[in-house]
Amino acid sequence: MKVGVVGVGHSKFGKRAEATIRDLSHEAVKPAFEDAGLTPKDVDAIVFSLAGDMFNGQGSPAALVSDYLGTYQAAPIRVESACASGAAALKTAAAFIQSGLHDKVLVVATESMSHVSTSEATELMSRTGDMIWEYSFGISFPAFYAIYASRRMAEGLTRAQLSAIPVKSHEYGALNPNAHLQKTVGLEEAMKSIVIAHPLNLYDCCPISDGSAAAILASEKTTKDLTDTPVWITGIGTSGDTMQIADRPNLTNLSGAQRAAEISYKMAGIGPKDVDFAEVHDCFSIAELMAYEDLGFCPQGEGGKFAEDGQMYIGGTTPVNIDGGLKSKGHPVGATGVSQCYEITRQLRGDIIDKHAIEGAEIGLQHNVGMHGTFVNVLIYKR
Amino acid sequence: MKVGVVGVGHSKFGKRAEATIRDLSHEAVKPAFEDAGLTPKDVDAIVFSLAGDMFNGQGSPAALVSDYLGTYQAAPIRVESACASGAAALKTAAAFIQSGLHDKVLVVATESMSHVSTSEATELMSRTGDMIWEYSFGISFPAFYAIYASRRMAEGLTRAQLSAIPVKSHEYGALNPNAHLQKTVGLEEAMKSIVIAHPLNLYDCCPISDGSAAAILASEKTTKDLTDTPVWITGIGTSGDTMQIADRPNLTNLSGAQRAAEISYKMAGIGPKDVDFAEVHDCFSIAELMAYEDLGFCPQGEGGKFAEDGQMYIGGTTPVNIDGGLKSKGHPVGATGVSQCYEITRQLRGDIIDKHAIEGAEIGLQHNVGMHGTFVNVLIYKR
Repeated sequence: MKVGVVGVGHSKFGKRAEATIRDLSHEAVKPAFEDAGLTPKDVDAIVFSLAGDMFNGQGSPAALVSDYLGTYQAAPIRVESACASGAAALKTAAAFIQSGLHDKVLVVATESMSHVSTSEATELMSRTGDMIWEYSFGISFPAFYAIYASRRMAEGLTRAQLSAIPVKSHEYGALNPNAHLQKTVGLEEAMKSIVIAHPLNLYDCCPISDGSAAAILASEKTTKDLTDTPVWITGIGTSGDTMQIADRPNLTNLSGAQRAAEISYKMAGIGPKDVDFAEVHDCFSIAELMAYEDLGFCPQGEGGKFAEDGQMYIGGTTPVNIDGGLKSKGHPVGATGVSQCYEITRQLRGDIIDKHAIEGAEIGLQHNVGMHGTFVNVLIYKR
Repeated sequence: MKVGVVGVGHSKFGKRAEATIRDLSHEAVKPAFEDAGLTPKDVDAIVFSLAGDMFNGQGSPAALVSDYLGTYQAAPIRVESACASGAAALKTAAAFIQSGLHDKVLVVATESMSHVSTSEATELMSRTGDMIWEYSFGISFPAFYAIYASRRMAEGLTRAQLSAIPVKSHEYGALNPNAHLQKTVGLEEAMKSIVIAHPLNLYDCCPISDGSAAAILASEKTTKDLTDTPVWITGIGTSGDTMQIADRPNLTNLSGAQRAAEISYKMAGIGPKDVDFAEVHDCFSIAELMAYEDLGFCPQGEGGKFAEDGQMYIGGTTPVNIDGGLKSKGHPVGATGVSQCYEITRQLRGDIIDKHAIEGAEIGLQHNVGMHGTFVNVLIYKR
């Protein structure tokens, strides 16, 4: 696999209820075209990621956005893998290019969620759970991840270890102008906030955000023609897991993430130690902790210590979510996977020159999870 | 492009409100695995097509179905291109294989619609129109296609020419055990039925159906290992058009279909005269008529004469929709594209031995349209 990222763009994430999915998409796509030195007429396919039709009541959002962007003659398609939709769109675009079907593909990833109430948003997201056997009994996503956190705490994870994760995310997110929540939080405050779904509190849960991110991918030849600072997608691994959490053999890790990582590392010809930094799917603090282990940044069961020791900061073993992650940057669900690509591409190109910069980084990894581990995409990028 | 179809399956189409999307999917997937001589453990990815979350209120249906089928460890993804979702799923699966990302991919395409009232179904489908500039003014899909039909009638198309199309579809559909409406209809009756959206009457419009179709695709090497009667996907063309019908420069044809056909023919290295039969997207009679021209089976403007002369019957220039088409077989929207693949594969393998059989057919073409031409996929198959 050798597909290039030739342009990226990002909207402001946050409560953007005044902006439609057309507006948000345009905010990300315009800078992506400028970054690539291309125009909407230059792409021959558009892959759109948006997870929730039910938030806006608009069917086939790809058509709406493609029309607004002026790319409607290009081949349009939408992909959906719940919160992993963004990386699924990147995978699909990469496959279109690597197969020879298309040469330059625009990936647009957008979600508009904050115009509904928090309880309604939680309700709508819960509908990606099994409507017969899970949703109807009242379980929501904070509750799914609370089950994982409870199991880990029964095995020794401490409150302080878990809260070290959002403290780090907010510290970096406060520096990211695109972030939804640009503020720092102390460990004490992060540990003692209001309970959302025990043991997860407010700082363990990402906010409900609106936003968009875009990337333009191209074939190896076209990438080399377009840029002197190419970033390559060299590994793509996808796996899934059972729909119902009750069917999982264990509740300490996401086996789908472990399988996806294994496939991706093998394709890229690297191992976890070669990863200079990662963007992982921290919809909840416990999700980031499980990712440290599932991706091999630390041994199984040692994610708590990894966090406590600050190994996920710049200068640690593997810097994680230096853009603030879902926790601080925000999580417009369909957009998140492409937002991760945006951050990785800019880090690898050396575009980031402030306190966010990871000096000399050559390899970045993206981990994008849908539902409670039911869809997982792990992509590896190299400069 | 050389990807093989190694197994296909099909559920009964019709009013199946007693069956969930899990049940319908299983009805199609079980025979597809039997046909391929494979088990759920053998596929390494699953591409799911379902157009309308809002019909069932179930988010991420791919996870639900993948879990039920026992394929959840495979890489799951859902694609959506409104009524062209089925062919979009086949395209995605083919790209996954041709790019080397996956070797054997299960495509499952399902829709459950008839549990809501006809007016509610029409309303939900209308939501794929522009929610701000079209839907809110009350236009539905019969009305979009009525605009095309009106324009063609102003240019000379007769009522009898248009009605010749559903007469043919019902004649063949009556022979198809999977068809929703298994009954013939005379020309007089087809011409004088109740008006749905003038000039389209009941027989110009496909029914609202539930159903599922499945296909297993594989790499060239694996296909040759698995079967002595391979069917190959040799051409894939996709294009789009404006979201709003008001932005189209003409209302006589679908320019997206013309572009998609051109790309697909070029990739397959053939022309319209090489096509032995076709499965086209006849959501409305006028849509099939435009397809005759857009695909090059007859010159521009001569679709009416083509129909009147019966050139779309077995023995004519190009047999079209010999399984009954959307009109008689039914149109569970997300399933339709894969149902077309099912029919083409079985025709090319010589599995059909009754009055449906197209003797000696070597090349079949699939034309799957979303909305009023906003998504179009044209695939070419060769035995």
